[in-house]
Amino acid sequence: MSRTQTAQLMDGTSLAGRMIEESAAHAADITRRTGTSPCLATVLVGEDPASVTYVRMKQARCAKAGIKSRSIGLPAETTTAELIDVLAGLSDDPEVHGILLQHPCGPHIDERAAFEAIAPEKDVDGVTMQSFAAMSFGLPGFMSCTPGGIMRLLEAYDVELDGKLAVVVGRSAILGKPVGMLLLAKNATVTYCHSRTADLSSIVQEADVVVAAVGRPRLIRGEDIKPGAVVIDAGYNPGNTGDVDFDTALTRARLITPVPGGVGPMTIAVLLAQTVEAAANQLGIRQS
Amino acid sequence: MSRTQTAQLMDGTSLAGRMIEESAAHAADITRRTGTSPCLATVLVGEDPASVTYVRMKQARCAKAGIKSRSIGLPAETTTAELIDVLAGLSDDPEVHGILLQHPCGPHIDERAAFEAIAPEKDVDGVTMQSFAAMSFGLPGFMSCTPGGIMRLLEAYDVELDGKLAVVVGRSAILGKPVGMLLLAKNATVTYCHSRTADLSSIVQEADVVVAAVGRPRLIRGEDIKPGAVVIDAGYNPGNTGDVDFDTALTRARLITPVPGGVGPMTIAVLLAQTVEAAANQLGIRQS
Repeated sequence: MSRTQTAQLMDGTSLAGRMIEESAAHAADITRRTGTSPCLATVLVGEDPASVTYVRMKQARCAKAGIKSRSIGLPAETTTAELIDVLAGLSDDPEVHGILLQHPCGPHIDERAAFEAIAPEKDVDGVTMQSFAAMSFGLPGFMSCTPGGIMRLLEAYDVELDGKLAVVVGRSAILGKPVGMLLLAKNATVTYCHSRTADLSSIVQEADVVVAAVGRPRLIRGEDIKPGAVVIDAGYNPGNTGDVDFDTALTRARLITPVPGGVGPMTIAVLLAQTVEAAANQLGIRQS
Repeated sequence: MSRTQTAQLMDGTSLAGRMIEESAAHAADITRRTGTSPCLATVLVGEDPASVTYVRMKQARCAKAGIKSRSIGLPAETTTAELIDVLAGLSDDPEVHGILLQHPCGPHIDERAAFEAIAPEKDVDGVTMQSFAAMSFGLPGFMSCTPGGIMRLLEAYDVELDGKLAVVVGRSAILGKPVGMLLLAKNATVTYCHSRTADLSSIVQEADVVVAAVGRPRLIRGEDIKPGAVVIDAGYNPGNTGDVDFDTALTRARLITPVPGGVGPMTIAVLLAQTVEAAANQLGIRQS
C-alpha cells in the first residue's frame, strides 16, 4: 500500500441513524400491538454538566424513536443505599423496560453495588456482572453499549475477525474488557494492553484490528498502525480528540472511525435497540 | 542463556501440600470455635469412571483436611431441571458450605443452567457467571480452581507479571478466560490464543509467561518458548501428557510446571482452601 493512501471512514453516524430507524419501527410495532411503549428509565446522581447533557441527549433520541423515558434525578448527596433502593424499585416496576444509571456517579457511590441492583433483563446499558459474563461466554444478554456498537460497526464494514489479531488498549469493565471478550467470541486472537504494558507500540504494530479505549489523547500514533489495519477509536477526550492520532493513522489504516461520528453515535444506537429488545422480551412479543 | 540450561520445576505437589496443611489448620480452628466442620457437597451425574475417580480424590483430600464431604450421586438420566433442584437445595442448606458439580455432566445437561443454580457464596469451584465477573473485575469472590492454582504457583515462585506479556492458549469458561482475567488484574499484558489463532508459534515466542490450557497434547514445542520464559502447563491429556512438549521446553524455559505434579495438585488445594473460606464466611468467623 502506498503511504499516501487514505483510510475509509467508518461512518458511525449514518449506521447509528439506520439502527435508530429500525428501533423506531420496532418500538412503534410494540406500541401498536401491546398498547405499551418501550420505556427507558434514566437515573442521574447530582448535576454534573456533562452527565446532564448525556442524559438529555439519550432522552431526546428515545423520544425521536418512540421510546418513552422516565427521568430520575437524585441529589448529589444521595447515598449508595438510597441509589440501590431507586434502582431496585425500577427493576421491579413493570412499566420500566430498561434502566440506565448515568456514570460516573461520584466518588462517594459504590458504583458496582449500584449497577448490581439493576435486574439483568433491564440492563440495557450492559453494566452488570451478569451481562459481562454473558458477553464473555456467548450467552444471551445485553451488551455494554460501546462494545456492542463497535461490534456492529465491524460487522457493517465486513471486517474479518476470525483468526485475526485484535489489540484492545484499555481494560475498563464496560469498554476494554467486554469488547475484548466479544472479539474473542468472533474468533479473533485478542491482546489486552493497558497503562502498564511495556512497549505498546510494538504490540499495536502487529494488530489487524486496534480498539483504542483508554482515554489518553492521541496515545496511538500513525506509525503504530500496521498498514491496512482497522482502527476503532473509542477514546473520548476533551476537544473531540480520540485516543488515536487521526491524521497520521489515516494514512496507514484501511478503515478508521472518526472522532466524533464513529463509535460515539453507535453507543446510543445500541442503547435504544436494547431498550426496545428488553421491552419486547418483557411484553412477551416476538419482533418481526 | 545457554541451550543446555534446564528450567526449574514449579513443584505444585509440595506447594499444594502446604496449602492443604493450612486449610486443615483453618478447618480445625473453625470446627473448634463453632462446633461445625466445613462441608463440601459433591454432585456427580452418572458414573463416568474418570469423574468418579476425581470426585473420590477430592473427597479423600477433604477428609484428610478435616473437611466433611457430602456425596450426591445422581443417575445418568437426571434432567437439567432435576439437577438444578438438587443444586438449589444445597445452595439453601445451611449445613453445606461449598458445592462442587463434577463436570462434564453429559450432553443432555445444560451445564451453564446447572452452574447458575449454585449460590455464589458456595461456588468454591468458581464456575458461576458471578464468580467469573468477580475474577474479571477484581471483586471478592471465589476463583475457578485451576486458574486460582496457577496464580498461587506464579506467586510462590515470585514470577513478576506487571508489564509482562502473558499468552494464554485456550479460552474455556473455567480455565482460559478466567486465568487471562486474573493475569490482567496483575497488570500483565494478556493475549488469548485458541484453535483459530493464526501463527500460534510466533505469538507464544513473544511471551514472558505462557499458560497452555487447550487440551492438545504437546501443542507448544520447545522452539516456541522464549528463552527464560515461565511455562504453565494446565493441559491434561491421556497418558499424563500436557499441552507443552516438556522435554524440549525444559531447555528453554526458566520455570516450568511438570505434568503431573504441577498445576493438577494446585486445583484441589484451591478447592479445599475456598471451601474452608466459604465455611468461615457462612459461619461468621474471621480466620486468624
